[in-house]
Amino acid sequence: MSTDHTRRRSRASMREVADRAGVAMSSVSRVLSGHPDVSPAMSEKVMRAVDELDYRPDILAQSLRRRETLSIGFVVGDISNPLFAEIVTGVESTLHSNGYSMLLTNSLGDPMLEAAHIELLSHRRVDGLVISVLDETHPEPMSQLRGLDIPVVVLDRSVPSDIPVSRVLSDHRSGMKEAGLHLLDLGHRRIGLIGGTPVRPALERRAGLEDAFAARGLPATYTADEGSFAVEHGATAMRRYLDLPEPPTAVIAGGNQLMLGALRVVAERGIALGRDLSFVGCDDVAITDLFQPAVSVVRRDNVAMGRTAAELILGRLRDDAVPEDVVLPTEFVARPSCGPPP
Amino acid sequence: MSTDHTRRRSRASMREVADRAGVAMSSVSRVLSGHPDVSPAMSEKVMRAVDELDYRPDILAQSLRRRETLSIGFVVGDISNPLFAEIVTGVESTLHSNGYSMLLTNSLGDPMLEAAHIELLSHRRVDGLVISVLDETHPEPMSQLRGLDIPVVVLDRSVPSDIPVSRVLSDHRSGMKEAGLHLLDLGHRRIGLIGGTPVRPALERRAGLEDAFAARGLPATYTADEGSFAVEHGATAMRRYLDLPEPPTAVIAGGNQLMLGALRVVAERGIALGRDLSFVGCDDVAITDLFQPAVSVVRRDNVAMGRTAAELILGRLRDDAVPEDVVLPTEFVARPSCGPPP
Repeated sequence: MSTDHTRRRSRASMREVADRAGVAMSSVSRVLSGHPDVSPAMSEKVMRAVDELDYRPDILAQSLRRRETLSIGFVVGDISNPLFAEIVTGVESTLHSNGYSMLLTNSLGDPMLEAAHIELLSHRRVDGLVISVLDETHPEPMSQLRGLDIPVVVLDRSVPSDIPVSRVLSDHRSGMKEAGLHLLDLGHRRIGLIGGTPVRPALERRAGLEDAFAARGLPATYTADEGSFAVEHGATAMRRYLDLPEPPTAVIAGGNQLMLGALRVVAERGIALGRDLSFVGCDDVAITDLFQPAVSVVRRDNVAMGRTAAELILGRLRDDAVPEDVVLPTEFVARPSCGPPP
Repeated sequence: MSTDHTRRRSRASMREVADRAGVAMSSVSRVLSGHPDVSPAMSEKVMRAVDELDYRPDILAQSLRRRETLSIGFVVGDISNPLFAEIVTGVESTLHSNGYSMLLTNSLGDPMLEAAHIELLSHRRVDGLVISVLDETHPEPMSQLRGLDIPVVVLDRSVPSDIPVSRVLSDHRSGMKEAGLHLLDLGHRRIGLIGGTPVRPALERRAGLEDAFAARGLPATYTADEGSFAVEHGATAMRRYLDLPEPPTAVIAGGNQLMLGALRVVAERGIALGRDLSFVGCDDVAITDLFQPAVSVVRRDNVAMGRTAAELILGRLRDDAVPEDVVLPTEFVARPSCGPPP
């Protein structure tokens, strides 16, 4: 795989390989097809030209027009987010029962690596791709996506409208509105929202919280502390809130990793949730009902998200009419981490 | 990919393709190499024979002898185990800084699917394979591993000695001995060990606990409740222990998912760890220092395990002399979940 991602490669032709190697096209044919009657010197000459031109013979394309590889790629942005395990399980089980396999890559949170992985999976001839892009506007992954001629399903992100994809989205907005109403009705007015990277889920959560204030006819007296979706940002933002002269009486962590970081600070400082401070997290990961007290969350069904993504890919491979967007619900679950303001 | 894993395919030759298609070998060459001057009818005839014989032209093999695909496969047994995220991160970052990519598959805990994934990655021509087999004796994955001609690194498992692999192992035994000594020195004698599938880590943990009793000159008065590594088994075994007429005064969960299940029962029943019951888990996952009280664990460095696996693969690809086994330490961390017996 080339590591030069900025150059858009135009595909070399067999003619160019023959010219570069200084041999006849029939010789290139014989070498590339594995014909037994080829001298080592000829093979060497042709393969050097193939390497230099990065020529990929059309055999793969031809073979693909006739039979699929029965594999789907999944470009995971950062596998340390436990949500991906659930989504992957949903995708894998649905693909498996339809005779497909899944190949995953992990981008370590790096959009350049993400772009390289889209290219890698495309070279390995997957029949379709599932991705939750790290950065909705980064030119490299977007340019790689634009170049694909296979069905692509994007998870919970917005991508430029000229990239033809189906999307599976979570309705973060309505779940977060419910969370906001719960806090407002308990009497909270100073609310802190720890936001992540300003991509679709973060923007929707913020809109949902504003909906809640609007629904009660109140001014939107919340503050947002946006950053990344990482555990560290959750901890940093929580510390910043708690150290304010007038700290918020309720904090919402807009992401499960942010929640983890925020809860570490809560544990460190011996804060009693639901009494000293009200707290809402996102995603029903293991910690939420094992923490003391149990933590209110906006939850969603990630296995269903994976399953839906796989169904969209399979539908598009069968040329079924599939929706452009599928929106899955979120749900607010009230638990003892929320109480009236102190 | 074939789903018939029991049949060992012998490779069809180009001659057989030509015979089956009823055309000259030069015609097969031209079709397979993507020569522009081929009629659709000829292409159709040859490609049908290619399909029927499952012919894979030697171009891939030739190309590989000259340049690697610069990709490594990682067959993950069950991605819902959060340890894999850390191991994957270690593997990926090491591979990436050496110019390699990683392709993952997830086997949903099913050894047959695991075997299919080894085959899939081998067909996609990865340069090496990292795997933590689900079942050390299941014939299908073992037979697939036996057939590979690329470097294989096995994580924390024993495989039959005729399969040439390198291994990265955790020294579970010494960490678990420390945990056992801690409990014995606090005065515990009735200890329950929730074990997982009886593969290497589970067997080592049990041996470590026996080492602790032996080191204190005590009879090994513990009981083991073995099953799977799943959350559910952790909960079931914990309930069984607590419902005994004479329950253990200390319980060890031999795995992070088992720990999660056991802690759910602790939370359900309102048991105060360190006072009503002492408890030790495995692996320093998020829950252990957020639970009240914080949970003692035998911990290991999973990112280092991934990094080491990648280094072994890269070393073998460079034909360096690499060790057969690398053993990484584990460490017991005492926290307030352990106290004297009630």
